[in-house]
Amino acid sequence: MYFHAAMIILIQSKDQIGLVAVISGILAKAGLNIVSLREHVDKVENRFFMRIEAENETDPVLLETSMRQVLPEKALITINPKQQKKIVLLVTKEYHCLGDILIRNYFSTLGAEVQTVIGNHTTLEDVCKRFGVPFVYISHEEEQFEAKIMEQIVALDPDYIVLAKFMRILSPAFVAKFPARIINIHHSFLPAFAGAQPYKQAFERGVKLIGATSHFVTDQLDEGPIIAQQVIPVNHSFTAADMVKAGKDIEVSVLAKALRLVLNDRVFVYRNKTVVFE
Amino acid sequence: MYFHAAMIILIQSKDQIGLVAVISGILAKAGLNIVSLREHVDKVENRFFMRIEAENETDPVLLETSMRQVLPEKALITINPKQQKKIVLLVTKEYHCLGDILIRNYFSTLGAEVQTVIGNHTTLEDVCKRFGVPFVYISHEEEQFEAKIMEQIVALDPDYIVLAKFMRILSPAFVAKFPARIINIHHSFLPAFAGAQPYKQAFERGVKLIGATSHFVTDQLDEGPIIAQQVIPVNHSFTAADMVKAGKDIEVSVLAKALRLVLNDRVFVYRNKTVVFE
Amino acid sequence: MYFHAAMIILIQSKDQIGLVAVISGILAKAGLNIVSLREHVDKVENRFFMRIEAENETDPVLLETSMRQVLPEKALITINPKQQKKIVLLVTKEYHCLGDILIRNYFSTLGAEVQTVIGNHTTLEDVCKRFGVPFVYISHEEEQFEAKIMEQIVALDPDYIVLAKFMRILSPAFVAKFPARIINIHHSFLPAFAGAQPYKQAFERGVKLIGATSHFVTDQLDEGPIIAQQVIPVNHSFTAADMVKAGKDIEVSVLAKALRLVLNDRVFVYRNKTVVFE
Amino acid sequence: MYFHAAMIILIQSKDQIGLVAVISGILAKAGLNIVSLREHVDKVENRFFMRIEAENETDPVLLETSMRQVLPEKALITINPKQQKKIVLLVTKEYHCLGDILIRNYFSTLGAEVQTVIGNHTTLEDVCKRFGVPFVYISHEEEQFEAKIMEQIVALDPDYIVLAKFMRILSPAFVAKFPARIINIHHSFLPAFAGAQPYKQAFERGVKLIGATSHFVTDQLDEGPIIAQQVIPVNHSFTAADMVKAGKDIEVSVLAKALRLVLNDRVFVYRNKTVVFE
Repeated sequence: MYFHAAMIILIQSKDQIGLVAVISGILAKAGLNIVSLREHVDKVENRFFMRIEAENETDPVLLETSMRQVLPEKALITINPKQQKKIVLLVTKEYHCLGDILIRNYFSTLGAEVQTVIGNHTTLEDVCKRFGVPFVYISHEEEQFEAKIMEQIVALDPDYIVLAKFMRILSPAFVAKFPARIINIHHSFLPAFAGAQPYKQAFERGVKLIGATSHFVTDQLDEGPIIAQQVIPVNHSFTAADMVKAGKDIEVSVLAKALRLVLNDRVFVYRNKTVVFE
Repeated sequence: MYFHAAMIILIQSKDQIGLVAVISGILAKAGLNIVSLREHVDKVENRFFMRIEAENETDPVLLETSMRQVLPEKALITINPKQQKKIVLLVTKEYHCLGDILIRNYFSTLGAEVQTVIGNHTTLEDVCKRFGVPFVYISHEEEQFEAKIMEQIVALDPDYIVLAKFMRILSPAFVAKFPARIINIHHSFLPAFAGAQPYKQAFERGVKLIGATSHFVTDQLDEGPIIAQQVIPVNHSFTAADMVKAGKDIEVSVLAKALRLVLNDRVFVYRNKTVVFE
Repeated sequence: MYFHAAMIILIQSKDQIGLVAVISGILAKAGLNIVSLREHVDKVENRFFMRIEAENETDPVLLETSMRQVLPEKALITINPKQQKKIVLLVTKEYHCLGDILIRNYFSTLGAEVQTVIGNHTTLEDVCKRFGVPFVYISHEEEQFEAKIMEQIVALDPDYIVLAKFMRILSPAFVAKFPARIINIHHSFLPAFAGAQPYKQAFERGVKLIGATSHFVTDQLDEGPIIAQQVIPVNHSFTAADMVKAGKDIEVSVLAKALRLVLNDRVFVYRNKTVVFE
Repeated sequence: MYFHAAMIILIQSKDQIGLVAVISGILAKAGLNIVSLREHVDKVENRFFMRIEAENETDPVLLETSMRQVLPEKALITINPKQQKKIVLLVTKEYHCLGDILIRNYFSTLGAEVQTVIGNHTTLEDVCKRFGVPFVYISHEEEQFEAKIMEQIVALDPDYIVLAKFMRILSPAFVAKFPARIINIHHSFLPAFAGAQPYKQAFERGVKLIGATSHFVTDQLDEGPIIAQQVIPVNHSFTAADMVKAGKDIEVSVLAKALRLVLNDRVFVYRNKTVVFE
């Protein structure tokens, strides 16, 4: 589930007979050896998804041109997506997800470069500075809160925006600017306990597992396409506060997994679902 | 998490200082050695729960009398609960949970005796007969459907009634007769996807884990105290029908776990929650 | 991870450039639509593995002929493997794996037909008879123990032989007759605790997880290619006997999973490893 | 599984009848209310373990004196263990476990203070400095390598020494100085793949799960009492290098769990096993 190859090719399109043949035929003609091929057809939506890792190299522009000639109209083709992507983080006060990302970023194993951290509190400024990562404080009490965040992001032009425990809700207008590019970590096993205070809800319901969900953000709160989910066992001895503590580790783990999948170009989005080639 | 001892003592009461001391003092005076002691205080409800396994034996009636003298009023005390309990199963057409229970019953490892299986279809009659377990067919189209089930159960006087994929909803009046004695297996990770067709809902939401929940039945549909929950990973390649298939194994596993816990007297119920001393 | 298609095509061969293209080209020419394609190249062994599910149908003999013309020499090609395979079970006294398989067999969801159960004790004869499955008793004290088992198997010509808690060791000569066709369930997380009494070993080592492993049998005891493994948590409160009890459920689960994978033609074997397209 | 109480009482001794009664009697007399009580008797070793969390407070010295009068000789009694323990970390080049610990240390959620990091390479010096944690470089090529580490540790007098991916083997003489106080993270599911290069071994064996084990260090390499273990699934698509990468996350997680358990005084050690009151 890691990169082993010289070229990465991602295709999403309407399905039709023979797609694998025409695509692999083009690759063979170009002298590329397929090391790993993952393919999925969503029969309900009649949609085709493919991810290829190939050895040897060829001109990506020519390759794409060849493909456009045979693939269905409006096919989404990405050849050699950036291996080192850029991300901007939005945070509030909780450090656990941010800390994990900063450590990986510092040791160059994140698969992305953290350009800037934007916080609506100053709590996490110091830890960012210790790693030499710019921190921008924008209070949610400012009138132009979202506009100022937008300004920063537009200037930085990141590949993804990661809400690493950002406790404000972004407006539909904001979200609409970055389709399938805003990644959130929600502290429950969605769709259970959407909305506020999921651990309190979980405590009151007396569940025996709690979880976390990483998903792309859409204009429907906590309703976007799910990338990764995990759970851990809890029991009667956990107070609501204990669940919060225990949940933090699983949040770190789920967000780390979602980022690794997305940054390794293993996640396709269509309508409200993901196809994840793990 | 299994029986190792001669005596089992279960206590649930209002909490107060010194309960462990007075209880263990009585046991020591009676010459009992505590092999395993589990205790929980629910601080929110000010409620005390204790489960003891002790070696050596003493007269249970005298023991209970001694305890009543020192425990809070209305304390629930059970000494040496029946090791071989009796259960009645309610089923519809799906065999997987029933099959697992029949096999364990046949090999005397269920920790209970299946007295009778009641089905609202005849689909599962043959498999019951193969194991010499009585099967009673009561169609849900009969006018007196619930009354007839009730009649059977009252005659058999089981310790627990297990809904092993029984696809009918029992009335609040029925449920009220058997508080904390009806055990259900719901094919989702509650509270996600309560109600009908949870796998279809899960498929449409694009979740990455599906689960099952075993709970006591109350008059709130799918809202009773949870005993056990488990999940398994799914992905984009699963159709809704695949999720149903994959889910069956986890349903079997969760119901088996819940039954083992309940039949081993490891589950206490208070309000809408359980305390489970695994 | 289930069948959704009209044709299943399995290929294993030496790797070379363009294999996907030539294979998918032949399928396209035959009017087959690829619904699901899984491919793996083992770079260490230079070995190519592919599993295809395709819609529409074509003559499998012609299809294989076309493929042989373009695939490397000695390629292993299977088109439309039998969907209803035949299996023979070998058992001793423990019922849990057998019970699960008999139930699935009875309800036609095993993906195979159990032809016969061979036991070196008579303990499990009755349960087989209840399901109308033939049971053959061959005592391990008989001189011709293995020869008699062999005789039964040769007469039945099963696709797979499943050791469902068969507590005797088969000779290398016996095993050599059925390469990658004998499936065992070992009651430990191999390679930890190979050999006898793994739970006793696990108890003495004080491990916090115990597991089970399903693998193909080779002439190296407990060393064959692994198909599936799972673990469950244990703790200090488990005696060795408790671990045995707890382990049974995970053994059932792992063997069920391994059988589903093998019977759905999702497992390729090469040297001492498996490629499993889940 | 977290602290909720004013007093913590830990007892380990030979088992005898009535221990719970005498202990809880003393607590009741002192006006302490037991919030949480965990008890285990190891029947094989005839050994008694108890952990109590109690509300209200009393003089710990008097409490211990009362207990010594009634407990078996040589009982180990700890009342109110330090909540903020001190630890020294030993590292080599791998950052992942260290990074996680430094982040928790910085945000005061580790349950301990990292006094110093000792490295036999300088690779991790910078990250320590960023957090203001002292780093001492002691090359393993120095003649007095172990003696110099010892000197540092003796001067700092930590409660625990954590081998956070320290790739050198400590001598039995060194280890003997710190019984049940050196915590290691081993990158396999022990006892599988003890010794060097466990992921290479796991890759060659073709396992379907890989794991990590945190244990106390004894003079038997990788044989000390196990505190925590976890596994994650792998498959044929993982190279040995991929397993190393995937394993790092589980190593972080297992070491974090082991530290939380030990630092919360939930782990008792006797002979080569632990009792863990999670």
